[in-house]
Amino acid sequence: MTNHRGHLYGIGVGPGDPELLTLKALRLLKASPVVAYFVAKGKKGNAFGIIETHLEDGQIRLPLVYPVTTEALEPPLSYEAVIADFYDTAAVVIGEHLNAGRDVAVVCEGDPLFYGSYMYLHDRLSADFSVEVVPGVCSMLGGAAVLGTPLVYRNQSLSILSGVMTEDELRRKLADTDAAVIMKLGRNFDKVRRVLDELGLTGRARYVERATMSNQRIVPLEDVDPMASPYFSLLIVPGQKWQG
Amino acid sequence: MTNHRGHLYGIGVGPGDPELLTLKALRLLKASPVVAYFVAKGKKGNAFGIIETHLEDGQIRLPLVYPVTTEALEPPLSYEAVIADFYDTAAVVIGEHLNAGRDVAVVCEGDPLFYGSYMYLHDRLSADFSVEVVPGVCSMLGGAAVLGTPLVYRNQSLSILSGVMTEDELRRKLADTDAAVIMKLGRNFDKVRRVLDELGLTGRARYVERATMSNQRIVPLEDVDPMASPYFSLLIVPGQKWQG
Ligand SMILES: C[S@@+](CC[C@H](N)C(=O)[O-])C[C@H]1O[C@@H](n2cnc3c(N)ncnc32)[C@H](O)[C@@H]1O
Ligand SMILES: C[S@@+](CC[C@H](N)C(=O)[O-])C[C@H]1O[C@@H](n2cnc3c(N)ncnc32)[C@H](O)[C@@H]1O
Repeated sequence: MTNHRGHLYGIGVGPGDPELLTLKALRLLKASPVVAYFVAKGKKGNAFGIIETHLEDGQIRLPLVYPVTTEALEPPLSYEAVIADFYDTAAVVIGEHLNAGRDVAVVCEGDPLFYGSYMYLHDRLSADFSVEVVPGVCSMLGGAAVLGTPLVYRNQSLSILSGVMTEDELRRKLADTDAAVIMKLGRNFDKVRRVLDELGLTGRARYVERATMSNQRIVPLEDVDPMASPYFSLLIVPGQKWQG
Repeated sequence: MTNHRGHLYGIGVGPGDPELLTLKALRLLKASPVVAYFVAKGKKGNAFGIIETHLEDGQIRLPLVYPVTTEALEPPLSYEAVIADFYDTAAVVIGEHLNAGRDVAVVCEGDPLFYGSYMYLHDRLSADFSVEVVPGVCSMLGGAAVLGTPLVYRNQSLSILSGVMTEDELRRKLADTDAAVIMKLGRNFDKVRRVLDELGLTGRARYVERATMSNQRIVPLEDVDPMASPYFSLLIVPGQKWQG
């Protein structure tokens, strides 16, 4: 029995390049007896791959394996319920380590609170345990850096959108912003490109796959094969240059 | 005479906590013979303060001192012209070092391409010199981390806005987004709070001053003194929790 409970750390590990880890992330990772990471069945885990070389043998690796599911399940099953159950279970497993006095670091690609799966653990555990979030370089900043394009100038607005949105929603939101980042392309690529074309934004838009990863690809928009756009890709419509 | 030209590095140093520096930023900073930083007259320079302890005596410190100006100048003077002249000159000075074969690291608070002054040097120098941007943790991610609040869930949209916008523009953009970050508060604080009140968003909004810096302050929205909100402050309206 121990009389102190472990701390939970939500740790951003950046967009892919292992050198984009922060000093704080590295220190806490090395000091955490348990390192948890999200991973698809049969895969290695993107965030885990970024930090693996820093771990010692004695540290417990805790894979949180996403359930195999789809957004279109038949009732009484639902995507939401399957996913909620997965996070509930992951939170229980992590809670056991914390109750046993072991700190747990959950590593997260990019930043943990910027569309990260870590948020669902945070929402389940932060009321009962001591929790600290270590911010990381998110994918849109990694993307802008490798594209070498300023994102937003001065008092311009920046909208972060998802390719999953309907064509109408994308059109309306893109029409009322100075700059934009569109994530979750994949199968939505064609729809997104159509909207950019309509709004005359195609010329300004830039596209990158797996920004800062070793297999990064920067492709001109017109050359992207819409059937082959990977999950780790994003589009940037930079703000108009301010002369300043 | 040297026959190779130096490289320009635009280096994000994170929102304030020196431990939020990335490994890559640290490596390049230590290796750069010239380290340039933006600074207001008589001040120390925020980004420079974050990395100062890592520098050796032999490295050249190059302060880029902002001109004392205001956005409301009488013609023939204009704010834009004064600022443009400042960046033109800074680019010439940096260009001299690059031409002499010395690498120059320009340090930038947060991320360099996310509303950073570095962008104006990038736009002036990237056509003629080899330039690389090292992304950093931007202020909104530092803010979300210390507030412990997930920013955006799943396919929600996130709008990054400026307190400088008109009340109408703020209202319209806030009404059509799932989550928002509002930067550049200061004197604009009262206006921003009025709009949040009108839209019923005040209860969800969170406020932080100097996130991750040693003098960070988290203040409930209703307790913020609108006359005393500092430049380094921001407001977050997180997306509605997704149960997931
Ligand atoms: C669930 S979100 C996770 C975001 C992550 N937490 C972050 O801070 O960037 C997944 C989306 O992020 C984007 N993404 C993440 N890493 C990326 C990378 N290295 N290059 C391009 N896009 C990336 C893709 O648009 C992908 O669909
Ligand atoms: C010119 S922008 C620079 C943004 C910076 N490049 C970044 O990546 O965050 C200045 C604005 O950033 C925000 N800001 C920067 N650092 C901050 C911090 N540590 N805490 C809160 N707000 C900050 C404030 O809203 C401020 O008005």
